[in-house]
Amino acid sequence: MPSVIPIAVLGCGRIGRMHARVLARHPGAHLVAVYDLIPEAAAETSRELGVRAAAGVAEVLGDNSIAAVLIATPTSTHVDLIIAAARAGKAVLCEKPIDLDIARVLECEAAIRDLSGTVMIGFNRRFDPSFRALRERLQAGEIGRVEQVIITSRDPSPPPATYVAASGGLFRDMTIHDFDMARFLVGDIAEVHAIGAVLVDPGIGEAGDIDSAMIILRSRAGALVHINNSRRCAYGYDQRLEVFGSGGMLLAGNRHATTVQSFGSNHTGAADVVLPFFIERYAEAYSAEIAHFLDCVSSGATPMTSFADGVEALRIADAAQESLRTGIPVHLDKCT
Amino acid sequence: MPSVIPIAVLGCGRIGRMHARVLARHPGAHLVAVYDLIPEAAAETSRELGVRAAAGVAEVLGDNSIAAVLIATPTSTHVDLIIAAARAGKAVLCEKPIDLDIARVLECEAAIRDLSGTVMIGFNRRFDPSFRALRERLQAGEIGRVEQVIITSRDPSPPPATYVAASGGLFRDMTIHDFDMARFLVGDIAEVHAIGAVLVDPGIGEAGDIDSAMIILRSRAGALVHINNSRRCAYGYDQRLEVFGSGGMLLAGNRHATTVQSFGSNHTGAADVVLPFFIERYAEAYSAEIAHFLDCVSSGATPMTSFADGVEALRIADAAQESLRTGIPVHLDKCT
Amino acid sequence: MPSVIPIAVLGCGRIGRMHARVLARHPGAHLVAVYDLIPEAAAETSRELGVRAAAGVAEVLGDNSIAAVLIATPTSTHVDLIIAAARAGKAVLCEKPIDLDIARVLECEAAIRDLSGTVMIGFNRRFDPSFRALRERLQAGEIGRVEQVIITSRDPSPPPATYVAASGGLFRDMTIHDFDMARFLVGDIAEVHAIGAVLVDPGIGEAGDIDSAMIILRSRAGALVHINNSRRCAYGYDQRLEVFGSGGMLLAGNRHATTVQSFGSNHTGAADVVLPFFIERYAEAYSAEIAHFLDCVSSGATPMTSFADGVEALRIADAAQESLRTGIPVHLDKCT
Amino acid sequence: MPSVIPIAVLGCGRIGRMHARVLARHPGAHLVAVYDLIPEAAAETSRELGVRAAAGVAEVLGDNSIAAVLIATPTSTHVDLIIAAARAGKAVLCEKPIDLDIARVLECEAAIRDLSGTVMIGFNRRFDPSFRALRERLQAGEIGRVEQVIITSRDPSPPPATYVAASGGLFRDMTIHDFDMARFLVGDIAEVHAIGAVLVDPGIGEAGDIDSAMIILRSRAGALVHINNSRRCAYGYDQRLEVFGSGGMLLAGNRHATTVQSFGSNHTGAADVVLPFFIERYAEAYSAEIAHFLDCVSSGATPMTSFADGVEALRIADAAQESLRTGIPVHLDKCT
Repeated sequence: MPSVIPIAVLGCGRIGRMHARVLARHPGAHLVAVYDLIPEAAAETSRELGVRAAAGVAEVLGDNSIAAVLIATPTSTHVDLIIAAARAGKAVLCEKPIDLDIARVLECEAAIRDLSGTVMIGFNRRFDPSFRALRERLQAGEIGRVEQVIITSRDPSPPPATYVAASGGLFRDMTIHDFDMARFLVGDIAEVHAIGAVLVDPGIGEAGDIDSAMIILRSRAGALVHINNSRRCAYGYDQRLEVFGSGGMLLAGNRHATTVQSFGSNHTGAADVVLPFFIERYAEAYSAEIAHFLDCVSSGATPMTSFADGVEALRIADAAQESLRTGIPVHLDKCT
Repeated sequence: MPSVIPIAVLGCGRIGRMHARVLARHPGAHLVAVYDLIPEAAAETSRELGVRAAAGVAEVLGDNSIAAVLIATPTSTHVDLIIAAARAGKAVLCEKPIDLDIARVLECEAAIRDLSGTVMIGFNRRFDPSFRALRERLQAGEIGRVEQVIITSRDPSPPPATYVAASGGLFRDMTIHDFDMARFLVGDIAEVHAIGAVLVDPGIGEAGDIDSAMIILRSRAGALVHINNSRRCAYGYDQRLEVFGSGGMLLAGNRHATTVQSFGSNHTGAADVVLPFFIERYAEAYSAEIAHFLDCVSSGATPMTSFADGVEALRIADAAQESLRTGIPVHLDKCT
Repeated sequence: MPSVIPIAVLGCGRIGRMHARVLARHPGAHLVAVYDLIPEAAAETSRELGVRAAAGVAEVLGDNSIAAVLIATPTSTHVDLIIAAARAGKAVLCEKPIDLDIARVLECEAAIRDLSGTVMIGFNRRFDPSFRALRERLQAGEIGRVEQVIITSRDPSPPPATYVAASGGLFRDMTIHDFDMARFLVGDIAEVHAIGAVLVDPGIGEAGDIDSAMIILRSRAGALVHINNSRRCAYGYDQRLEVFGSGGMLLAGNRHATTVQSFGSNHTGAADVVLPFFIERYAEAYSAEIAHFLDCVSSGATPMTSFADGVEALRIADAAQESLRTGIPVHLDKCT
Repeated sequence: MPSVIPIAVLGCGRIGRMHARVLARHPGAHLVAVYDLIPEAAAETSRELGVRAAAGVAEVLGDNSIAAVLIATPTSTHVDLIIAAARAGKAVLCEKPIDLDIARVLECEAAIRDLSGTVMIGFNRRFDPSFRALRERLQAGEIGRVEQVIITSRDPSPPPATYVAASGGLFRDMTIHDFDMARFLVGDIAEVHAIGAVLVDPGIGEAGDIDSAMIILRSRAGALVHINNSRRCAYGYDQRLEVFGSGGMLLAGNRHATTVQSFGSNHTGAADVVLPFFIERYAEAYSAEIAHFLDCVSSGATPMTSFADGVEALRIADAAQESLRTGIPVHLDKCT
């Protein structure tokens, strides 16, 4: 593998464009082409970054000068694209979730099992410098054995009803990040208790989904994990971790645009609102994610967020969905 | 009623002694007598505060100069003492829980129903200035509709196994405060999901109890409440509230002995450890609780923490215990 | 000396009344009488606390059952009262400053030099739990050698012009506390550079005083100390210390009524405003000051805030006044 | 001017290399060449970034394809290089200070006065997002009229004695940034009181300089500004602003590598140490500074940190040096 990886981006929506910009600046990557089903979207990114707009997926996968693809297309296309790209010998970085249907995900796993290239799933939060440092400090034993975790994850504002309808539901769409974070912090999960509510937007309820949730997980090792979600948060994108152990506690908090604090006749020490949403909040994480992917492509190492991690997060999401439906906890089999 | 209330304290253990000290200093109370089953305990408090040590409960209840009693004896004696004191025309402030057995609690309720005096249960946390201010700000609409609550409640170190055995279990002994706090913040509770674990002290597990818990409640109004408990906390007595609403969030945090912060080569902004345990952490709350009780005795107003609140907290604790045993959520009937 | 000290309070203005209340509750004191030049002021405090209102100073000083007096009368009367009380064999706790005129202060010192009783000056801030803990940590070597100190001291709102005219100026009236705090933290002072301005209230300037100041002190041991003052502070009574040493930094900050923090669409983590003024901010300090005084009266120990400390703080204030007038730094002789 | 500015970097020491890296990544710049008096230094940067290493200054200034130079050579060469570059028609971004000798700075000013190109001085701190936001909020009137400012500026560890000897002294080398920051916040300065000490490293004293300083400035508009400096700070690079106004206060604080906070048996809420030194602390500021320079080159606008700002900061530093020497305050004439 060359030390500068020639790469193409499939999908030029908000997140694809963001990845394309990171790749265009990254010294370890050479952004060769971008593609989108909507030609105008690809053309816009092409103009912005001065890279080729490919006419189709086939053009990208057939281009032997391209070593890797980043898949940021709609979820329903992920499995086909992963398989096709892997078969074409391309390394793959695919946005989460792999698919909304675990059966298709397992088919995909089977289809690529014997292929040798890197396949990585975009769980960006594992690459956040603060979350990563927190985990390293856990592993160094700073707070002893991990007993309880609280993951707070609240989006700034609800998505449109059309998005909700195709999203697979809150757990597969949004909480899946938190399920992966739980595994990052406490390992595999044995038990899932999910409680949901429609508190934010009745339209979400009419679309058959929930917009607020509280979940408790029990890890195989015995730790308890609480996740809370909301589709709307007045003070911005709320993303926090609290890890409680036998010897203390570690927190990782939100990020602010500045360090300015304000004192007046009604308040003291008021900070800025938190960074608005994932593009800003996880800017450093997305860069680190790309860097990790490029490293894995070069070195052949297994990514920190592997295909198997994508499978496990979806299994937990499915269990949560079942727990929500039945009103009782779901026990997960050992992953195979 | 006189504006200075003559009062006796029954029970001179750690918490009884603390209450006696607060009463001895309070301008609205006249601490007339203290009693304990162990004469030496009563004598010690008697000497410290210069008040009479009563020879028995009957002496106290028969003393017409005494208008009120504070009951801080072992839980198993509460019901009998409440009934006897109420029948003797004394106002009652009784430590939580009323009893570990809901049937006895309901008998007690029936027995005192037609008596007119004040009966108040010692849910001290409602009187904490920060928690109280937070609730007032909720009620003033500062963050809109309450959607999610996180109650963190961790004791500094586990009680001895002998205590655990007689405690009625974590939920009736410790979490009962959090159940009451949940009701204080979101009103009546409809659903209880309780998950427990033995992570801190195997001896607690051998005694048939748990030492770590995560709970989710759903209020009748639809809010979700998460409670997390541990019987051991390396950094002190951890007592925090997070209330998330449609318009923002309010937190109320731990208290420290000083405002000193330390900066060195390994850390910045390190505060003192938090106040060690309830006597210190809730010192202001205990004073405010006594003041509220004395006010209610004088005015005849219903206490903010009524007998009915004691009943409801125990019903939630019982439901949590059942949820723990069966592994499934428990739905609570409407309280009558 | 008896273990409960019989004491009288001279002066029933705001601060005298506050001290009287602390003494009335304190188990180590017996508040025997209160006195004020204005009979109605004494009568009000007398009624409130149920103690005798003395008809005159002579009645108090001639009462052999009274062991101590707390002087909270106008500054101009302090010296005469200290001398008279000391000669009458009373222990004395006198509010700062001893007098506005150093010559009178030195006369007072000479007059009481050979008398044996306790004389303590009310530099309450040394008794603040956080400032005291900070100093103990300095002395324990936590941050090595002290090199730089920043003392921030801002009053919530300017006093009336009539007060200013009789106050002796900002440095003798307000900064004198900060000068004493500087000595508490770094020992004796060798050099004073004072810069002043009228930024808050032109009326203060017309009265010949300043309302804003920045000062630099150099201690005999070589540490640098910055003091900043304002007569008005929009967010409350701002009282902070920053001590920078060879091995780190210690801060001690403001106090808030509650721990509540607010998050909304314009801010995050906004705390309450700070406690409004000295009565609230230093409530714990005033109690500890009284306790220390009673201890010194009982034990005969020299108070932590001795008459000599009162002399030194005034000498620094005088030097600051001279520096302000001349525009150049003033070097202080070694105290004798 | 083209929208991508061809630029060369003169000086490949630590800060020159940092600027070269920023320019190499910046879409609005084309880094054409780097130069250093020590060929190996230029060669190393040349290899790292894949740009030409120029053989001499003349080669750079004679290259008509180069529109701008960034001067990061030793201070003593700045004036000659600014004049030569400006005469060659290049836009100039020069590191601070312009020179240690105000006479030479004024000669430089005269020499370039009639030339039309952009000349900008590298006061990077004005471009820090937090400091800039704080100033914008001041200007929007958030805290009313500015009355008092505290600038804290402490380096992590002292420079070698050889550096100190050639540095022009603490005020011209280090505090010059704080003098510029004072002007950024309160405008022109009228009065300078400087107090210095050798508390950190006796070698610095032997070299005729100080390592610790406290300064008070008075602005022409009447605001008071305190600056404190140390050449050594155990907890990292301490860079803070406090601005107190008639309506409140704004703070801007240090930056940390992560948001992780630690709680244990000896402390709570301990953050990471602050970012170690200027390269890390002001990374965002250096990028914004470059972007602002490129904008000014393109638009012809006067830079926010103009040559005149460099002159003024040095005049204040000279006044501080005189105040240190004479022990009395120095009044600055109105700038011409």
